[in-house]
Amino acid sequence: MSYGRSFPLWRASAPAWGDYVHAPFVTALADGSLPRRAFLTYLAQDYVFLTHFARAWALATAKAGTPDEMRACSATVHALLHTEMPLHVGLCTAAGIDLGAVEEATQNLAYTRFVLEAGYSGDFLDLLAALAPCVLGYGEIGARLLAAPHDPAYAGWIETYGGRDYQALCHATGELIDGAIACRLGDAPEALPRWRELSAVFAKATRLEAGFWTLAD
Amino acid sequence: MSYGRSFPLWRASAPAWGDYVHAPFVTALADGSLPRRAFLTYLAQDYVFLTHFARAWALATAKAGTPDEMRACSATVHALLHTEMPLHVGLCTAAGIDLGAVEEATQNLAYTRFVLEAGYSGDFLDLLAALAPCVLGYGEIGARLLAAPHDPAYAGWIETYGGRDYQALCHATGELIDGAIACRLGDAPEALPRWRELSAVFAKATRLEAGFWTLAD
Amino acid sequence: MSYGRSFPLWRASAPAWGDYVHAPFVTALADGSLPRRAFLTYLAQDYVFLTHFARAWALATAKAGTPDEMRACSATVHALLHTEMPLHVGLCTAAGIDLGAVEEATQNLAYTRFVLEAGYSGDFLDLLAALAPCVLGYGEIGARLLAAPHDPAYAGWIETYGGRDYQALCHATGELIDGAIACRLGDAPEALPRWRELSAVFAKATRLEAGFWTLAD
Amino acid sequence: MSYGRSFPLWRASAPAWGDYVHAPFVTALADGSLPRRAFLTYLAQDYVFLTHFARAWALATAKAGTPDEMRACSATVHALLHTEMPLHVGLCTAAGIDLGAVEEATQNLAYTRFVLEAGYSGDFLDLLAALAPCVLGYGEIGARLLAAPHDPAYAGWIETYGGRDYQALCHATGELIDGAIACRLGDAPEALPRWRELSAVFAKATRLEAGFWTLAD
Repeated sequence: MSYGRSFPLWRASAPAWGDYVHAPFVTALADGSLPRRAFLTYLAQDYVFLTHFARAWALATAKAGTPDEMRACSATVHALLHTEMPLHVGLCTAAGIDLGAVEEATQNLAYTRFVLEAGYSGDFLDLLAALAPCVLGYGEIGARLLAAPHDPAYAGWIETYGGRDYQALCHATGELIDGAIACRLGDAPEALPRWRELSAVFAKATRLEAGFWTLAD
Repeated sequence: MSYGRSFPLWRASAPAWGDYVHAPFVTALADGSLPRRAFLTYLAQDYVFLTHFARAWALATAKAGTPDEMRACSATVHALLHTEMPLHVGLCTAAGIDLGAVEEATQNLAYTRFVLEAGYSGDFLDLLAALAPCVLGYGEIGARLLAAPHDPAYAGWIETYGGRDYQALCHATGELIDGAIACRLGDAPEALPRWRELSAVFAKATRLEAGFWTLAD
Repeated sequence: MSYGRSFPLWRASAPAWGDYVHAPFVTALADGSLPRRAFLTYLAQDYVFLTHFARAWALATAKAGTPDEMRACSATVHALLHTEMPLHVGLCTAAGIDLGAVEEATQNLAYTRFVLEAGYSGDFLDLLAALAPCVLGYGEIGARLLAAPHDPAYAGWIETYGGRDYQALCHATGELIDGAIACRLGDAPEALPRWRELSAVFAKATRLEAGFWTLAD
Repeated sequence: MSYGRSFPLWRASAPAWGDYVHAPFVTALADGSLPRRAFLTYLAQDYVFLTHFARAWALATAKAGTPDEMRACSATVHALLHTEMPLHVGLCTAAGIDLGAVEEATQNLAYTRFVLEAGYSGDFLDLLAALAPCVLGYGEIGARLLAAPHDPAYAGWIETYGGRDYQALCHATGELIDGAIACRLGDAPEALPRWRELSAVFAKATRLEAGFWTLAD
């Protein structure tokens, strides 16, 4: 999956990318060996994560430069608040998990606060670079797992992130990123020190994403 | 119109409230004496205003304390970006106005930057107090104008803001504000110094709203 | 006065620069014809301005990329809070002005909130571009007025901004800006769309600075 | 050590407070059993920490409500940038540590981004509540260790944080917090839901501080 021009370059310079997309948790999702309990712990933490992730995309809406950029970010906020989060509530409630009582794991907190702070202290591009590993990495994992034989145990998860809607969101996000970079940094952004900064934000966020999988250990 | 409990109190302590809701511009909208040119100048500036206003509500989404607060703010962002702003684009395009070429008036800039900065430097409540005069004042003006005889010249504007949908938004915003205050400042917020701060933010924003009407002079 | 490489380019593309540095208020400061009352009105508003200006430089400290950038910004915060602001307090108190009772003029508010919001919504460079017209424009005015014959009435003001300390601050600020741009946007920043964004922020801030002189009218 | 009125209450409701101030790392500092290598790892991470901590106090300066609050926060920024950070540079350089090459540990990042984000998303009080465990906890540890027999190995550290200057800073910070709360939330803040929010921020920051000690494990 390339999802545009910037993402493959950022991914290539993020040392933890492999640890993230090939984490034992991911393999265990695919072959069905992941204990249900670990999956539910992840799901409950992911709900807390999504709350902050929606806040971060809302911040991106506030920091965007054009109405089109605003609409792209706002669509993600809307999808998170009205589709993804209620889905998690449904699954967690069915499993008897009280989402109000979940204590946010440090790996979870570390990632979301890093993203939000990168956005507050930096600009729209810093925020997108911090958001990208989550959005696009889930797309890459989902597509890979869906294309290969996989155990039915977690097929719902795999079909969500490998499926058409989520993949379309990833392509749109890739375009949003490339467009935002082009209209700020021009046609050859890779030559600028600013590019190295953005790559570093992406790489750090990737490391934190890799850490996120371990919170159910 | 009361739109909840906090708004009437804030309004009562904002010296410029009368200047805002009974501005000559408003009277001229009602009796149809407002020159078309002045209305279009206002509309073009209002488009720029709405861009920043949508950013401010997006910031409120980011700063909200609960998913319900987030959803309330996000709904306004969505309505602004997908309904109100395209409406302005349609009207302005029909009138031959190039929205890309509009130079933001200082009264316009003063108000939106005040709102956004109040939100960034303060918290969710400061931001709501800064947003309230615009949202709820337009509701108050619209309801009053709609209930009285008015010239058809600007009936569209009057029906929009006096109409059911916008009035419902005002009631929801009033509830959002009251709820947000109660779950942070408790049952007797009026006794706290924090209340005076919020009233002062509201009063300042009201003064800037009053100034906004003069930009077409 | 060039104060580095970026400033002369930004200044050249800011249509309101002449209105700002050659404002009637400035001419009247030089020839001593400015009524004392207008000067004191300006001074009292300037005190409110400096409060927000110190906040903006503090925000720059928070958004800086390196300890050296942080120290440069923090030095300005320190100077504003411990030198410039007490100076204004002294002058205003001597003139019987109660600074606690000053109502912030809209032109004043418009400029400071624009600067702070540019900083919060953008990054370190946006904030510097918004701060530059004030810092460096006062330097340019001060140097020009000091070098020419001038009435003793406002010689104190002229000597402050034309004097060695303030001029040194301007040169340091020019270097801070050039260095911050170079280590983010590289050696040819003028070719990037980002440069046009920064120039636009500078130009808008210049227009607001020009407006500031009129608040005592 | 009480350092004012709010701190003892917040501390009492932070479950991780004991883990933080009585961490094995702290005990090993006192009895001299801490391996030099672990201390240097801590010191290098602490340098990165202080960079972000100075940024957070700068943000507090920007978000403060009065010039006095601004001056109190700015003094801490100044002390961090001009005294504490150069001290770390000196110690680390002497030990052959290249501070530019330090990779920020996740526990470190988690805490500083939590503090900064609490400040950006919340208001001045949220930021103070997030900053307090570090400033005041080090004061409490330093005072306790200094008052008891301790090994000379880390006496420098103990004397710094237990010493007069740092203790005075802690008392000033306690006063800053109490004053900031009183002039916003009034005389009985403990009864407000806002107080529970602030306590929760303090408690979470305390948990992250406790985690910080483990980064050299």
